[in-house]
Amino acid sequence: MQDTNSFLSHIEFLRAEIDKALQKLPIDESPEYLYRPIKYIVKGKGKRLRPILVHLSGHIHNADPSELMKGSLAIELLHNFSLVHDDIMDGDDTRHNQPSVHKKWDESTAILSGDALFALSQLLLTDLDTTVHQRFNEVALTVCEGQGFDKEFENNPSIKMDQYLLMISKKTGALLGLSSEIGGMIGGLNDKENNYLFEFGLNLGLAFQVQDDYLEIFSDESIMGKSLGSDIHYQKQTAMSILAREKDSSSWNHFIKEKKDVKEFRKYFHSSGIESETKKLIKFYIDKAQQSLSFISEKKRKNLILYSELILNREF
Amino acid sequence: MQDTNSFLSHIEFLRAEIDKALQKLPIDESPEYLYRPIKYIVKGKGKRLRPILVHLSGHIHNADPSELMKGSLAIELLHNFSLVHDDIMDGDDTRHNQPSVHKKWDESTAILSGDALFALSQLLLTDLDTTVHQRFNEVALTVCEGQGFDKEFENNPSIKMDQYLLMISKKTGALLGLSSEIGGMIGGLNDKENNYLFEFGLNLGLAFQVQDDYLEIFSDESIMGKSLGSDIHYQKQTAMSILAREKDSSSWNHFIKEKKDVKEFRKYFHSSGIESETKKLIKFYIDKAQQSLSFISEKKRKNLILYSELILNREF
Repeated sequence: MQDTNSFLSHIEFLRAEIDKALQKLPIDESPEYLYRPIKYIVKGKGKRLRPILVHLSGHIHNADPSELMKGSLAIELLHNFSLVHDDIMDGDDTRHNQPSVHKKWDESTAILSGDALFALSQLLLTDLDTTVHQRFNEVALTVCEGQGFDKEFENNPSIKMDQYLLMISKKTGALLGLSSEIGGMIGGLNDKENNYLFEFGLNLGLAFQVQDDYLEIFSDESIMGKSLGSDIHYQKQTAMSILAREKDSSSWNHFIKEKKDVKEFRKYFHSSGIESETKKLIKFYIDKAQQSLSFISEKKRKNLILYSELILNREF
Repeated sequence: MQDTNSFLSHIEFLRAEIDKALQKLPIDESPEYLYRPIKYIVKGKGKRLRPILVHLSGHIHNADPSELMKGSLAIELLHNFSLVHDDIMDGDDTRHNQPSVHKKWDESTAILSGDALFALSQLLLTDLDTTVHQRFNEVALTVCEGQGFDKEFENNPSIKMDQYLLMISKKTGALLGLSSEIGGMIGGLNDKENNYLFEFGLNLGLAFQVQDDYLEIFSDESIMGKSLGSDIHYQKQTAMSILAREKDSSSWNHFIKEKKDVKEFRKYFHSSGIESETKKLIKFYIDKAQQSLSFISEKKRKNLILYSELILNREF
């Protein structure tokens, strides 16, 4: 508990430093068409999960703080770029409780400001090792592939669990993997160690995404009708709907024929055993993530373990 | 003439090599949602003006051919990425006589495949000097700024010539400047020389864009009703409309009140002297471009001079 509290303060400190550095990025005034939305995006209330992870894994080996900050900001801008474009593609009109860019302005503005964020993220990498640049863009491409699979899988009732897992490993897992890996790269760890760090973030990302699907149905917000299983209704693949379909497709297809409220989903997932299977899946990926850290001394891996627990408890 | 013919064969050779290298890029099959449009884009009938320029300026100093190819492909992919996104923003439904990506598929597909092209372009730079990476992304951001100004200036009748020139220098000039500069960088020229090469491409780009505006009205295609001064009708700024407005705004405003055909535009621009002023402007920027090359021996600058003449004669 002591550990957790002091870790939480450490996280708060990092987040404040990251926010400060984001505000200090040299962003021009003109053209306003481009730079006003960029300022709006950068000021958004993101949790900064990814840049925080860059710092934490950089601290395993005392990486240079200014290099860590650059790498972490690059990842945060890359993340924001992909959110702005995904929001257009997925028709999501709010982000962090504010109108998304294409809603506040229009689609052209959102496309262009996303593009510029991507270019800005690259410029932050200029002083870092070329292998960082290479991994960064390999993962940027992977994230595009993840979104490609996500769009391709929409409305397709034949998608299997392994395809779903491939999709979220690319769309969500890879960028958390990169965040963890880049901290190690800047700290001078070797390729094998950096690969373990990537595995840590990747599996944490899988656990996080499956848990997201779970919380859409089983969180307090969902009962208040806030999200109402919107992904399921909107034909996106989710871990729970695939598990249900794979377990008993005729029962599931019968069940979803009509629009249901979230309480009915809960009942179905509970009585069919899907709820507990989903929890097991989340646990499986958390364990796998934490096992990837065994190459680090217990003392030094502590913060990454705490980080994995806290983000899964949605405590920050 | 002898020179021009052998230069044209050289250009054809380079274009064929570039096309071959583009086809050999390792592009995955899956997800099809992402990679089918990318293959479609890469197979498009572009003139490859920018990658050809990379090679030509690289040859000033015998740059490593494989590095030149990587740099030139990176620039071509960056260019294609910006075209795919601009076509969405500007509602252009054809590109190189084929349906543009957002028309053949949809906007989401076009956004995502453009993003992935940008990431792929970065990966081609991995083996090159970090200063190439930095300049590449500075210019990528500049191109976004140019598009931002272009959108901001739409429907704004108070835009002045210097604002227009700033806009096209960013949107069109900077990438031709970069193409020329990167060839020099890979060839190991010094910063001052590379800056001259950038100036060459930049001014050539300005001449090219102003000429584009001119040809929209005065080319044979325009009389056939193919484009019909579409930029003017669609409230985009053009060099000729700004010159006309700055010369006699009440006469111009009176003239454009109603939709005109291209013959009427020709007559107006001719009798008001705007036609000849535009030609002078083009000549001014060609001369400026060619003057930037005076640091190179006459023999070695010959191909760049021929290149500037040929692209302005639209001979390739």
